[in-house]
Amino acid sequence: MLTFVGLGLYDPEDITLKGLEAIREADVVYAEFYTSPAGARTIEKLEEAYGRRISLLAREELEEGAERGILELAKSKKVVLLSGGDAMIATTHVDLRLRAIERGIETRIVHAASIASAAAGLCGLQNYKFGKSATVSPPYKGVVSHVPYETIEDNSERGLHTLLYLDIGMRIADALELLELVERERGGEVLKRSLLVGIARAGSDDAVVKADYITSLKGYEFGDPPHVLIVTGDLHFVEREALIKIAHAPGSI
Amino acid sequence: MLTFVGLGLYDPEDITLKGLEAIREADVVYAEFYTSPAGARTIEKLEEAYGRRISLLAREELEEGAERGILELAKSKKVVLLSGGDAMIATTHVDLRLRAIERGIETRIVHAASIASAAAGLCGLQNYKFGKSATVSPPYKGVVSHVPYETIEDNSERGLHTLLYLDIGMRIADALELLELVERERGGEVLKRSLLVGIARAGSDDAVVKADYITSLKGYEFGDPPHVLIVTGDLHFVEREALIKIAHAPGSI
Repeated sequence: MLTFVGLGLYDPEDITLKGLEAIREADVVYAEFYTSPAGARTIEKLEEAYGRRISLLAREELEEGAERGILELAKSKKVVLLSGGDAMIATTHVDLRLRAIERGIETRIVHAASIASAAAGLCGLQNYKFGKSATVSPPYKGVVSHVPYETIEDNSERGLHTLLYLDIGMRIADALELLELVERERGGEVLKRSLLVGIARAGSDDAVVKADYITSLKGYEFGDPPHVLIVTGDLHFVEREALIKIAHAPGSI
Repeated sequence: MLTFVGLGLYDPEDITLKGLEAIREADVVYAEFYTSPAGARTIEKLEEAYGRRISLLAREELEEGAERGILELAKSKKVVLLSGGDAMIATTHVDLRLRAIERGIETRIVHAASIASAAAGLCGLQNYKFGKSATVSPPYKGVVSHVPYETIEDNSERGLHTLLYLDIGMRIADALELLELVERERGGEVLKRSLLVGIARAGSDDAVVKADYITSLKGYEFGDPPHVLIVTGDLHFVEREALIKIAHAPGSI
């Protein structure tokens, strides 16, 4: 039996009662922090909060090495795999679940809060007005991907907001710099004219939510990651009011 | 102090440890079940699971009547408001939060799992391939809204999946009937040719996830609500495999 348990947004206490119950009933508990940010969580803190021994899995052990380790064990034992956010957002986990099913291993999911749905509410934007999301990653072999920028343009043309995940550890200022680079290369202007919202440490007691235009937002001090970024599209008047009162947007928007 | 606590997907145990802590520290605890489905939760079950007296709020008490009730109380007491899913998806809650802030009341959000992010993982679809979502509602004064259908068409043209929320209590078969009606009126065909995924009781132990084409899915017995529906766009090969193995899609897709 392989149970995927989401840890939620940030703290060890962001797990559900159901998730904690799954940990307590498990024979073996693993965690991984490479598909989703760890937030304030370390193995030591999780062990202390949940009262169980927990082993950290490296990427290789979840991918090529899974057959010899976690999947072999799950054939006869109750195995729990902990990961940040919802338990099943990462393709790696979907893939692991499929391999478990092929081997006749029963699987179960215990969901938790994900930044994918929390981000909208944190700044008062309406969930159904978000288009496709994208991830901003560091340049690969010197090449900066145009995909996030294209996604913003495509959503913006339809009046939709765009949620941008940032590569683990990446900061809002770094992401904005990469997006601006692409905007210059393409001669675009969606970033220049859009109101942006930066969110740091969602789910924590010191979460920061700040809306502003790019020039100001680039210099804003968000503190430690995890960070995400929203490029807003057309704003309903309640959204506008929310961005001013909750996300401290300039009153002139 | 007004704390919005998400109850998560289905059972009383879908709340987070942080949410439970907020309830235990509160002076007064309210719940509402009209912006999001109650799932297996009743006031009695929540009271038993959380060990606190909980009062059900009617729509009027959250909207026009809030000033005389929950907001007045939150000026001097620690008030918790429980609702299904994430705590802040509904516009009603954003609006209530803004009114609290205007009155100088401190607000806090304790997030939980939302169907908005759980649906993708439940059937193995990739989160970032979803476009705008929409809600299917019963006809209003005899008129069936075209908005959900237009959203599906718009996403489908871009190869994106569409998550459709159903009005509280509505079933997949009823939603499909309304969507088919619109498709006939418009002479469209996106629904006829798309692979659909129905999800019932997400987060529960007897959740049902079933992928098929419309003719078969209309007759499929999903059991009790809450139900949601996904209209798939272009499928990556891992998504295809997942729909077959997890959501029992026909092998021919």
